[in-house]
Amino acid sequence: MKGLMQGRDLNVSDIIRFASRYHTHARVTTRRAGGGRVVHSYPEIEGRAAQLAHALKRRGILPGARIGTLAWNDHRHLELYYGVAGVGAICHTINPRLFREQIAYIIADAADAMLFVDPLEMSVVEELGAQLKAAGVATLVVLGEDEDVPETALKGHLEVISYEALIAGEPAQIDWPRFDENEAVSLCYTSGTTGSPKGVLYSHRAVVLHGYSTNLPDFFGLRAVDVAMPVVPMFHVNGWGLPYSAPMVGASLVLPGPRPQAADLVDLITASGVTWSAAVPTVWLGVLERLRATRPAIPQQLRITVGGAACPPHIASAFHDEFDITVNHAWGMTETTPCGLFNQRKVENKDMPLAQWHASQRRQGRPTFGVEIKVVDDTGAEVPADGVSIGEMLIRGPWIAAAYFKSRSQDSFTADGWFRTGDVVTQDASGYVEIADRTKDLIKSGGEWISSIALENIAVAHPAVEEAVVIAARHAKWDERPLLLVVLKPGSAAGKSEILDWYSGKVAKWWVPDDVVFVNELPHTATGKLMKAEVRKTFSDYIIARAQK
Amino acid sequence: MKGLMQGRDLNVSDIIRFASRYHTHARVTTRRAGGGRVVHSYPEIEGRAAQLAHALKRRGILPGARIGTLAWNDHRHLELYYGVAGVGAICHTINPRLFREQIAYIIADAADAMLFVDPLEMSVVEELGAQLKAAGVATLVVLGEDEDVPETALKGHLEVISYEALIAGEPAQIDWPRFDENEAVSLCYTSGTTGSPKGVLYSHRAVVLHGYSTNLPDFFGLRAVDVAMPVVPMFHVNGWGLPYSAPMVGASLVLPGPRPQAADLVDLITASGVTWSAAVPTVWLGVLERLRATRPAIPQQLRITVGGAACPPHIASAFHDEFDITVNHAWGMTETTPCGLFNQRKVENKDMPLAQWHASQRRQGRPTFGVEIKVVDDTGAEVPADGVSIGEMLIRGPWIAAAYFKSRSQDSFTADGWFRTGDVVTQDASGYVEIADRTKDLIKSGGEWISSIALENIAVAHPAVEEAVVIAARHAKWDERPLLLVVLKPGSAAGKSEILDWYSGKVAKWWVPDDVVFVNELPHTATGKLMKAEVRKTFSDYIIARAQK
Repeated sequence: MKGLMQGRDLNVSDIIRFASRYHTHARVTTRRAGGGRVVHSYPEIEGRAAQLAHALKRRGILPGARIGTLAWNDHRHLELYYGVAGVGAICHTINPRLFREQIAYIIADAADAMLFVDPLEMSVVEELGAQLKAAGVATLVVLGEDEDVPETALKGHLEVISYEALIAGEPAQIDWPRFDENEAVSLCYTSGTTGSPKGVLYSHRAVVLHGYSTNLPDFFGLRAVDVAMPVVPMFHVNGWGLPYSAPMVGASLVLPGPRPQAADLVDLITASGVTWSAAVPTVWLGVLERLRATRPAIPQQLRITVGGAACPPHIASAFHDEFDITVNHAWGMTETTPCGLFNQRKVENKDMPLAQWHASQRRQGRPTFGVEIKVVDDTGAEVPADGVSIGEMLIRGPWIAAAYFKSRSQDSFTADGWFRTGDVVTQDASGYVEIADRTKDLIKSGGEWISSIALENIAVAHPAVEEAVVIAARHAKWDERPLLLVVLKPGSAAGKSEILDWYSGKVAKWWVPDDVVFVNELPHTATGKLMKAEVRKTFSDYIIARAQK
Repeated sequence: MKGLMQGRDLNVSDIIRFASRYHTHARVTTRRAGGGRVVHSYPEIEGRAAQLAHALKRRGILPGARIGTLAWNDHRHLELYYGVAGVGAICHTINPRLFREQIAYIIADAADAMLFVDPLEMSVVEELGAQLKAAGVATLVVLGEDEDVPETALKGHLEVISYEALIAGEPAQIDWPRFDENEAVSLCYTSGTTGSPKGVLYSHRAVVLHGYSTNLPDFFGLRAVDVAMPVVPMFHVNGWGLPYSAPMVGASLVLPGPRPQAADLVDLITASGVTWSAAVPTVWLGVLERLRATRPAIPQQLRITVGGAACPPHIASAFHDEFDITVNHAWGMTETTPCGLFNQRKVENKDMPLAQWHASQRRQGRPTFGVEIKVVDDTGAEVPADGVSIGEMLIRGPWIAAAYFKSRSQDSFTADGWFRTGDVVTQDASGYVEIADRTKDLIKSGGEWISSIALENIAVAHPAVEEAVVIAARHAKWDERPLLLVVLKPGSAAGKSEILDWYSGKVAKWWVPDDVVFVNELPHTATGKLMKAEVRKTFSDYIIARAQK
């Protein structure tokens, strides 16, 4: 027997309509590339998104068409999120820091009809040149005024216009069309550290449910009076959903513009009264250094979320002890819209002393209602939730991918409908998950697993170590052995034996790395992730070569 | 183009599974009728709900069957919420304080296959006698042990057993079946102050989305570490959704058992560390008096929500100033699952002084994301959102009723899909709604509307007035005129002219009531609502009769 409730679909346009109608005093503040900030209200953002929607329809963009963006966190990108989705087209965000071949592949695979590009990223599309037209791109829109459109050889292949010219003269009113909530709304490709990038196609339903769940008090917990600054780029899995979840509760947004540096972020925090922010660990390390150097007046009760990579255990206590800033850890992936876990207190640890709680922020968190996880061994059997047993984390729920765009491969999905995260984790009895490794980064020494992340966390806790990575180096006898690479802090010194002694008593002896290599820097992706595959390429034969010397 | 997300339906069983798996340390505490409290964990609640589900299936209960309850807020009622819904049957909660004819009508209309009855409410079903069997009820389950089953003549008509006997021996494990999220999950009848009660049939989808939305930080805002005490009865529109929303975030529950008094509630608050509670204004007035009389140690940061009737403006400041308890106002109806509005701060009033903020808690609140409202005049045109213009509030969204059970009447719904709330409201520019009246309670004097609630609020602010009601009394010249009925505080005294003078300068002269009647008490429904229709029956000719004297 069916219930007798209104059959109203969850639509992304409802979010911007809601913010525009009920949260007129909230502010969307964008840091401009040229300096200064520009401020919009939600009614203004909705009006400009409506203008964009009319312009897209006028140009024959139909529901289902893909619209690519190579853009940073600013109001125009926010307008694209809503204007593109609002006409049923698919907002396809592209990371401008990917390799050119990857960007070319992604644009061709998505078959983007139009590309919206930040003026600072014009070189990216110029390098692609005629490939764009071949991929089906008809129009290049430069995200700015007419004077931001550079002279470019691309004009020989494509229509090139400014965003402001595109939307000029269009009406700011719109009666947003309604869509089946399972229709696609946005598209994002995995970074493709192994193999070709794979597209994840989000639906209205997934985005709205993800917004509800991540807005719960034990997750991001945004309120209408909050000022939320997503540092995580909007080209990186929906900016962790913030462009949707903040207006859903009427919170103000601070968008840090192109290529923000730590100094820019600290300026925005103080100038705009930021109460909540989210970024990867390397960003927060930079902000921490900047705060220490400048000691500015920080808004009270500032909360920051760290995610995208394992959070070094000392970060949470440093922010709290030195600046009264709360740190929580979140976990997600491109395939999970992206959030699924958040590390917040519950009954059994509500009185846990702060120091211990901060240390526990190395854990990625516990599931929010709507996602379910399962930790399994090679045979698919669940491993005990004891905080020790490791296995791959599977996840399911209405905002978890069921397939990749244009792909028939189901390698990443179990027969009974779970997504294989590729994260090797422990889960304790309370449901808190800690990532031990990526399946592909585990070190198999003499048939036994060693977690590279566990070894890295110990290394970075050493006072002289700035950054560390542990890889599986080939070994004649043990097949693979851990090799540690270290970047020392400026002005610090430490020798190989001092670093290796540091492991004593912290892990089993056979887990201690075989060797230490001191390097000046380590390679990172656009989103701050360590490119471990690159390191492995260079150093996988290091131990064997050493033995042969 | 469809998104590529997992097609996983929103199911109510996911809520109890989630709490049972991840929130094992949360507690469900029930106040027992005979004194004392009993405590369960969520795994225990899920296990007992599973036992119930197996027992229902064993008795041939099929998806879609209605299972009636005449029960208070206790763990068995919570188990019924999940055990019944978990097998696809419909948990039909019935208010035992309704008139007997209404209860008989409701049971027959719903065609309940089984009835679950609190031992204290046996007299209700005994009075119905053979009517139960005629309505199709085959089994009466007494919510207790075998010794709680009284000798009853009903055994001549029906199987009568105890709840514990029903579930004894059933397995506590279950693989909850999956349902289309639009399938019905529970049924509740409007109180039917006008006409016959009407059934509202909730779906899995409505209940889960309502849970997300009411758990947002600017609504109930429950966290895993909260201890939530729903005083609002679980027979009254899903207990404002708390039996679903609390386990959805892993919060503990305190269930106040049958017919709780103010002293019971204060005991539970102090003994169980309640951090959040919800009830109608008359309950809070009683608790306030009790707190004043006993001055117990209250948990820190206790938040209470008031709803179900207009909140007298002094309540919020009294709780805050005297006991450091935060009060917020919520609004909902049987037809809205039931919540839609909540009065929480936003940007434009975030620094509003506390006294002014507390006064603003007379307003019902602003919409939460997922519901939309519209305030319209007689012609269906929107009235200005200026805080002054009044009109009927329409509402729509995925947890708003589209029709009544077994009814073809669409009188309560507009042609374009909005539900007519029957509430006459103002809405200000920020979206805050204040109920001016029910459409049926407005007073039409010489062709102009007068709000009975505005006049009542002024009366109760008089220091001698305990409770007040204003009704439309018939009038020879003006058609209708306001008549005020007053219950004085014990030990207080006030005369007619003093009360009428109290209106001077507070409303237009022609709004001042024509007369004042002092009474010892006013009639209330089971949920604490003033039965204005009853008062009108008795007093509608009062002014005309007085004129004829």
